[in-house]
Amino acid sequence: MENIDPHSALFATYAIAATLMILKAVGMSWLTVVRMMQANGGFRSPEDLKKTLLNPRPDPAQLSPNERVERIRRIQLNDLESLPYFLVAGFLYVLTAPPLILAQGLLYGYVASRLLHFAAYFTGQIHEVRAAFWSIGSLILIFMAVRVLMAALGY
Amino acid sequence: MENIDPHSALFATYAIAATLMILKAVGMSWLTVVRMMQANGGFRSPEDLKKTLLNPRPDPAQLSPNERVERIRRIQLNDLESLPYFLVAGFLYVLTAPPLILAQGLLYGYVASRLLHFAAYFTGQIHEVRAAFWSIGSLILIFMAVRVLMAALGY
Amino acid sequence: MENIDPHSALFATYAIAATLMILKAVGMSWLTVVRMMQANGGFRSPEDLKKTLLNPRPDPAQLSPNERVERIRRIQLNDLESLPYFLVAGFLYVLTAPPLILAQGLLYGYVASRLLHFAAYFTGQIHEVRAAFWSIGSLILIFMAVRVLMAALGY
Repeated sequence: MENIDPHSALFATYAIAATLMILKAVGMSWLTVVRMMQANGGFRSPEDLKKTLLNPRPDPAQLSPNERVERIRRIQLNDLESLPYFLVAGFLYVLTAPPLILAQGLLYGYVASRLLHFAAYFTGQIHEVRAAFWSIGSLILIFMAVRVLMAALGY
Repeated sequence: MENIDPHSALFATYAIAATLMILKAVGMSWLTVVRMMQANGGFRSPEDLKKTLLNPRPDPAQLSPNERVERIRRIQLNDLESLPYFLVAGFLYVLTAPPLILAQGLLYGYVASRLLHFAAYFTGQIHEVRAAFWSIGSLILIFMAVRVLMAALGY
Repeated sequence: MENIDPHSALFATYAIAATLMILKAVGMSWLTVVRMMQANGGFRSPEDLKKTLLNPRPDPAQLSPNERVERIRRIQLNDLESLPYFLVAGFLYVLTAPPLILAQGLLYGYVASRLLHFAAYFTGQIHEVRAAFWSIGSLILIFMAVRVLMAALGY
């Protein structure tokens, strides 16, 4: 593995892919907030039923699951099962000094697969569509992790 | 972006913020354990109802959600939606060689926002208080990610 | 803390432990897929009840929780409460230039504890067994984080 060179095109590729994924993930949190405000519900904590400026007429039904909110939470959980591992695997992968074009294909391919997965999940496409995009991202992640493992083992 | 210099004050700032957040996150797991032992419940797996030294009188009610335990699990899930992304964004951010004072403000500001969010959630403050602290941390995370993205794109 | 030297045995130790854990985590996602296909259920989204090639006879019961699927999801969630933090703490820990033998003991010890935790959870062992393996991994994580924090503070 080569030393980290943050000025290199390889490292910039990683930094771009990583921050796009981080912004995407953080966006899910804000989207949850937006949908909770639209629905005036989908809350989770008992204290969210206290009367406040933002919740002038509390109603126990506000603690019931709201499908529009739960959908974003499911997308967010799906992100969590993959993105943190991608962020580390991608970093270690560029340290193995792969060809730039391959790294770009894998890292940007992962980003594209996750954005398409989001689009499919967000709009409620059939499971097969969602699963296809998810699988592409997962396979890229596995490929990078195996490559790093082999490099670290000296192969 | 500058090379990593683990001896620099900039990198030490990141390492301090990162490890404080990691210890905070791990603390949530242990707090869940403590509360499950106090409640003798809030378990999740069928096998947790087997009679053992630590659970001499199993009771199906032990698998019901326990609000004191669930509260910590919600805090932990909230951590998960932010901390792993912060750990990577903060690392990449210090690689962009920002002014030390700005990095300290952002990184320690994030840590403070998460500790205050914990305090508000733990003590059941109204949603507005919790949301305010959460928002500060989330905006810091977005700022750092955008800054890294711009640096990687050459701006 | 020393500079990153990806060619060092220390960094290779981290890269091996990190990628093994990433592959383990990604494996949980695929295991969830396998079990959902075996059970033809355990789905979560309303659109998963649409009639498709892979789901020719949709049934509302397919959206009910399936214990065999939920077990893997609980393991996956347990991974999430620890692995992302380990991946960052382990990285920062090897930057503090610890003795190789100690780093190997901690990093591979963590990997072993998580694989044994998986084996215990997967086969439904009593809580005490699962908890013992979980605790070992968590204590290793805490040790590494505290060590990095002290190094960053100059101790």
